[in-house]
Amino acid sequence: MQFLLDKTDGPARLGRVFTDHGVFHTPAFMPVGTQGTVKAIQPRELEEIGAEIILGNTYHLYLRPGTEILEQSGGLHKFNGWKKPILTDSGGFQVFSLSELRKISEEGVQFRSHLDGSTHFFTPENVVDTQRSIGSDIMMVLDECTPYPSTFEYAKRSGELTLRWAERCLNRFRETEGLYGYTQALFGIVQGSTFPELRKFSANGLVGLEFDGYAIGGLAVGEPTEAMYEMISVCTEILPENKPRYLMGVGTPENLLEAIERGIDMFDCVMPTRNGRNAMLFTSHGNLNITNAQFKNDFEPVDAKCGCYTCQSFSRAYVSHLFRAKEILGLQLATIHNLAFYQTLMKEARHAIACGEFAQWKKQRLFNQEEVTEYI
Amino acid sequence: MQFLLDKTDGPARLGRVFTDHGVFHTPAFMPVGTQGTVKAIQPRELEEIGAEIILGNTYHLYLRPGTEILEQSGGLHKFNGWKKPILTDSGGFQVFSLSELRKISEEGVQFRSHLDGSTHFFTPENVVDTQRSIGSDIMMVLDECTPYPSTFEYAKRSGELTLRWAERCLNRFRETEGLYGYTQALFGIVQGSTFPELRKFSANGLVGLEFDGYAIGGLAVGEPTEAMYEMISVCTEILPENKPRYLMGVGTPENLLEAIERGIDMFDCVMPTRNGRNAMLFTSHGNLNITNAQFKNDFEPVDAKCGCYTCQSFSRAYVSHLFRAKEILGLQLATIHNLAFYQTLMKEARHAIACGEFAQWKKQRLFNQEEVTEYI
Repeated sequence: MQFLLDKTDGPARLGRVFTDHGVFHTPAFMPVGTQGTVKAIQPRELEEIGAEIILGNTYHLYLRPGTEILEQSGGLHKFNGWKKPILTDSGGFQVFSLSELRKISEEGVQFRSHLDGSTHFFTPENVVDTQRSIGSDIMMVLDECTPYPSTFEYAKRSGELTLRWAERCLNRFRETEGLYGYTQALFGIVQGSTFPELRKFSANGLVGLEFDGYAIGGLAVGEPTEAMYEMISVCTEILPENKPRYLMGVGTPENLLEAIERGIDMFDCVMPTRNGRNAMLFTSHGNLNITNAQFKNDFEPVDAKCGCYTCQSFSRAYVSHLFRAKEILGLQLATIHNLAFYQTLMKEARHAIACGEFAQWKKQRLFNQEEVTEYI
Repeated sequence: MQFLLDKTDGPARLGRVFTDHGVFHTPAFMPVGTQGTVKAIQPRELEEIGAEIILGNTYHLYLRPGTEILEQSGGLHKFNGWKKPILTDSGGFQVFSLSELRKISEEGVQFRSHLDGSTHFFTPENVVDTQRSIGSDIMMVLDECTPYPSTFEYAKRSGELTLRWAERCLNRFRETEGLYGYTQALFGIVQGSTFPELRKFSANGLVGLEFDGYAIGGLAVGEPTEAMYEMISVCTEILPENKPRYLMGVGTPENLLEAIERGIDMFDCVMPTRNGRNAMLFTSHGNLNITNAQFKNDFEPVDAKCGCYTCQSFSRAYVSHLFRAKEILGLQLATIHNLAFYQTLMKEARHAIACGEFAQWKKQRLFNQEEVTEYI
């Protein structure tokens, strides 16, 4: 994997990440493909809307279909038909949010499957092995996503454990190879809750280990937005210029633009897909709940400025009807549009950085959006 | 609407139906778009698999979104983005199968909505009006779908009522015009349960009224398959050569081929879409329940002979995984494949008729299919 930083505009960065499955342009938004599919959308449609990399969840893929079937298939790309880059998380986040009876120790974390209650054990080493079986282009280290709020003491111990785990992941990564004839990269994850001192400790520790890229985890977990932005800046000031920076699990369009302005290159979030399935549509002039009565006979497109299949082919009235009638097509069209909205946002952000006009563009973009959100 | 009979091969017919929204080739299978969408598939995908006409359900569309919104939209084609021909049923079938407290009289049928319990009244005249609002290319008369089994007496009275309603529909049809600048056609419906004498009475009565085409209703409602085939022959021997013939709500691939051999031109059925959503996939060598354990690590396509997106892009193992994981994409891929299977079946049937080899082709097709269905 190679990262080229093409341009900066203040801390905002325009770049390209080259993998054996092709290049993706940063700032990049990665649609979330939890169980080996981005929900309610086909790989060819993801390409159509401009997605260049998707995310897979190691926890889910490990439990189902399992590494044996993924290996027999020749890796996740061959299994799910997505030929471009894939990033996988380590599974740690889902262990802490979904599974039962988890028990964390120096060695790793024991948990029970949310599917059948069976007991499993994740270690820094075996999550690398699992991601080797998955064959993702970018793998993540095992971390503890420090809960918010945490005491300084808890966050410190948790951050230190995450750092030790990161080193063990890196060792396993260096002593193994990809299973399918292409190379994989490994990113470290900065933790430290909302304590600048701990974030600095974590970031500096990881930088010393020399990962292919660096993620910032443990944000957007309930802390005030301003604290999130502050932590991002604390981290990006330390992280090396020549490696991509990935803010995990974030966020709203506004969050993304604020984070780009603070030097973030990569994002993932379930918001566009999950909110879409709940009838919430993003538009360039605010968010719509498409089931609202006012859209029953609104024959305009969801977003007149959007070039996606949904907006080019159907009216708000039709999408509204599909949601009222509980039709699967409604979920499909909402997913296509919301992901297209996020991809377009990233494309425009990249263009603004290329032109050296990021701050100005961001202000205008957020202004347009807030204005009409109020009226709706 | 114009029907051209291009070739016959015994009673089997090859033809074309010309409408203001384009031509469709017969024998034709119409995917069912109950609530203004064929479930889990996009209009562009329906075109991709070769569908040339779809069906809409007047009962559902009348209740939701309702004729007011359909009229404001400029008709169903503009509302749902399907630019090719649409046929609508009259709503009668759903009144009898879905609604509550229905009360049938000479005037029409009163019923309660299955959605909110509200009371409505369908008459031969107002179902034509509703289909004018929908703007379907082919409209159907209001009929009573005679239940099976029925006594001769009941079937006789029911068939006579359906015939009187057909004439009233035709009168309303002739004294009104399409709302959107294109023409619409009206088909009569033969009833008569499994009584040849009643089928003949009904068919002869309708032929005297001169409809644009003729449907055969009240079959595949529980009667023995042989009785269904016999009734089809009784009807097609009477129905005029120069008008299309539509067998309503049928059926399995075998049913379709047997009916084509008896002179049927058009079909609709929820089987490919509904069964697909229940993990049952049609293939050229038998049906698969894709959730069966044997498919977990079967990396062949669903049907190696099929050219659809599902078969060209994914394995049985992946589709099986999607169903196990309850992913919407599984429903999408199964729907695309099953409808493609039906469209391919019709395409091959048309080719066989064109070559004068229908009987021989049909035998081989059904043989291939039965052989492997047993082993699976």
